[in-house]
Amino acid sequence: MSQDLRLPLGARAPRIRRADAMAVSIPLRKPMRMAGVRLTHAENLLVRIEAEDGSVGWGEAASAPTMTGDLQGSMLTAATQVFCPLLGGQNPLDRVGLMTRVDRAMLRNTGAKCAVEEALLDLCGRLLKVPVYELLGGARRDVVRPMHLLGNDSVEDDVDEAKARRADGVDFFKIKVGVKPLSEEVRSTRLLREALGWDVVLCADGNMGLDAQDVLDYCAQVADQKLLFLEQPLRSDDLRGMARLAARVSIPMCADESVGSAADVMALAEAQAVAGVNLKTIKFGGLSAVVHASHLCEQLGLHINLACKVGESSIGCAGLAQLGAVMCNLDWGINLTNHYLADDLVVTPLLPTGGALAIPSGPGLGIEVDEAKIDRYRVR
Amino acid sequence: MSQDLRLPLGARAPRIRRADAMAVSIPLRKPMRMAGVRLTHAENLLVRIEAEDGSVGWGEAASAPTMTGDLQGSMLTAATQVFCPLLGGQNPLDRVGLMTRVDRAMLRNTGAKCAVEEALLDLCGRLLKVPVYELLGGARRDVVRPMHLLGNDSVEDDVDEAKARRADGVDFFKIKVGVKPLSEEVRSTRLLREALGWDVVLCADGNMGLDAQDVLDYCAQVADQKLLFLEQPLRSDDLRGMARLAARVSIPMCADESVGSAADVMALAEAQAVAGVNLKTIKFGGLSAVVHASHLCEQLGLHINLACKVGESSIGCAGLAQLGAVMCNLDWGINLTNHYLADDLVVTPLLPTGGALAIPSGPGLGIEVDEAKIDRYRVR
Repeated sequence: MSQDLRLPLGARAPRIRRADAMAVSIPLRKPMRMAGVRLTHAENLLVRIEAEDGSVGWGEAASAPTMTGDLQGSMLTAATQVFCPLLGGQNPLDRVGLMTRVDRAMLRNTGAKCAVEEALLDLCGRLLKVPVYELLGGARRDVVRPMHLLGNDSVEDDVDEAKARRADGVDFFKIKVGVKPLSEEVRSTRLLREALGWDVVLCADGNMGLDAQDVLDYCAQVADQKLLFLEQPLRSDDLRGMARLAARVSIPMCADESVGSAADVMALAEAQAVAGVNLKTIKFGGLSAVVHASHLCEQLGLHINLACKVGESSIGCAGLAQLGAVMCNLDWGINLTNHYLADDLVVTPLLPTGGALAIPSGPGLGIEVDEAKIDRYRVR
Repeated sequence: MSQDLRLPLGARAPRIRRADAMAVSIPLRKPMRMAGVRLTHAENLLVRIEAEDGSVGWGEAASAPTMTGDLQGSMLTAATQVFCPLLGGQNPLDRVGLMTRVDRAMLRNTGAKCAVEEALLDLCGRLLKVPVYELLGGARRDVVRPMHLLGNDSVEDDVDEAKARRADGVDFFKIKVGVKPLSEEVRSTRLLREALGWDVVLCADGNMGLDAQDVLDYCAQVADQKLLFLEQPLRSDDLRGMARLAARVSIPMCADESVGSAADVMALAEAQAVAGVNLKTIKFGGLSAVVHASHLCEQLGLHINLACKVGESSIGCAGLAQLGAVMCNLDWGINLTNHYLADDLVVTPLLPTGGALAIPSGPGLGIEVDEAKIDRYRVR
């Protein structure tokens, strides 16, 4: 930039005084089972960016080695050694330019990049006194109805949990498959549908834990269970396998681990491998890239499931809620994850009422971070 | 929206008190010749949206019957009878929702829709006290170097004008072809290159005035003249013809009249008909749609030329400058048109210095409209 991006009414924007990354480990309420993993703690990266005037922006990213290739330690190292040093002394309103520099400084490391952009957007929103959704193109909705993810060790626990959430007003559930023997997965799906009735939306997530024959068998045996989609049954690199399945089964296919960039979205669409995609900020390296990918999905006719990674606190969830306000094609649901945590990192956790979450409309992410909580869960 | 989009810090947003459309006819400094047309006046639509608190947003769109199918009268009618009545009493911050309603209320009419969205964004920016570029995803540059369009009746006048603009610091010119006999067009291109030297960027625009053989002949005879691109030589519906030419000539092809939507961008890319596209807000029905199309271009590897239509005043040019701040792939230049007008509609016209235009960073479009000027040029 040769000229200077300025605050409203021409005031000079305060520069970034410091940018810090930190690791936190927050216990889950109870262990979460997914294909191949059993999570007990959320091991997340936080980024805190402070401007000269004392304004602070926060960002968060879950570590997800099977999804982004990043462990918490590597995220912390990348943010501390490479990304944060790029920010000091800079104009935070040059958010696009700064993220271009962050993006080019290292290949991949999308989780750490995501936490940096989220913190930068939070800070810009606070400086400009607008919610982040205004900075990402404007809100098309002010309420979202998050989907609930079921991941207990037994189907009986899944049923009990789903019924309790149903009583809270939740009407959209995602079932984890690819963990138990196939006959058990089929039984679980049918039991959940029976327990919840036909008014709720059900979908299933394989987390790369199935093989092609499993998928054909599972889909045949739950074909009458009205699943909205089956997510990522095969390995992330098996594009041809996904395309073959998509042509043979009646349940629409969704990609998650297979899609980490707009180029992936394009390739999946061209291969006719999916009807929709799961977009996560930690995969795309930020919020803006997810918005851009949504414009691509609009043209490609792909549904979108927008999701946090278990278990982001209300910081990451606020970022996702801001995206939830903005995105088109958001008809495959939105997943927040703060309710899986035994504790949260903000003063007032972001929680739905009657199944509906009002998207925060205060400046930035619209949340108030509790630094004492962060101190408690910080990994040193 | 069930909840309410609010001003910063939770204040209730003032509602739209009134929305008005008006036609203006502004004389050009001198007639502008393009394939098939000789313009003497800019016949534009203006939209003015006023909020309860007295804040006002302005938008503009040139009439361009060969490009959008809309005459000034039809734009005025659509805006007055259909679009403006949708806005009264509404929350202007629900800009995405309102434009969805405007867009669905009538097919096409993209010029009038564009003026409405521009006015809405100007108003939102003023209410939120941020420049429009913040509302469209954030600025990646704060200066643009507009291209100059040459459209005199004689090549000698083109050369004189180009030399004068070159002395002002302009280093990027677009030549109109498809008006004179082909040998004259070739002579013009070569004379301009000779007069301006190799440090300036030259491109050519056919405005649908050539046939395929003309293009082959023209490209062969100016192959050594280093044209950045040749724009829209064939008719807008001749996608196959464009693709055949693109495969045979060395000058990259650009689409203008052929591209009026993101779907068109996709179709042109899939047909391998172009290396880039000319994006105009009047074709896409607004600024946001152009930003979304730019994300598509990024994935498709298409260059972008961002352009006003002759002759939008500093109102429309401010909208384009805001887009110029935001857009990716903007490596085929940006065209502003207010300097073709004998008068402008703002207090301080938006004009480059030394070839560079500082993008306004005040609230909204960052301009101050002169309502007395509008009154003078208003068509009643």
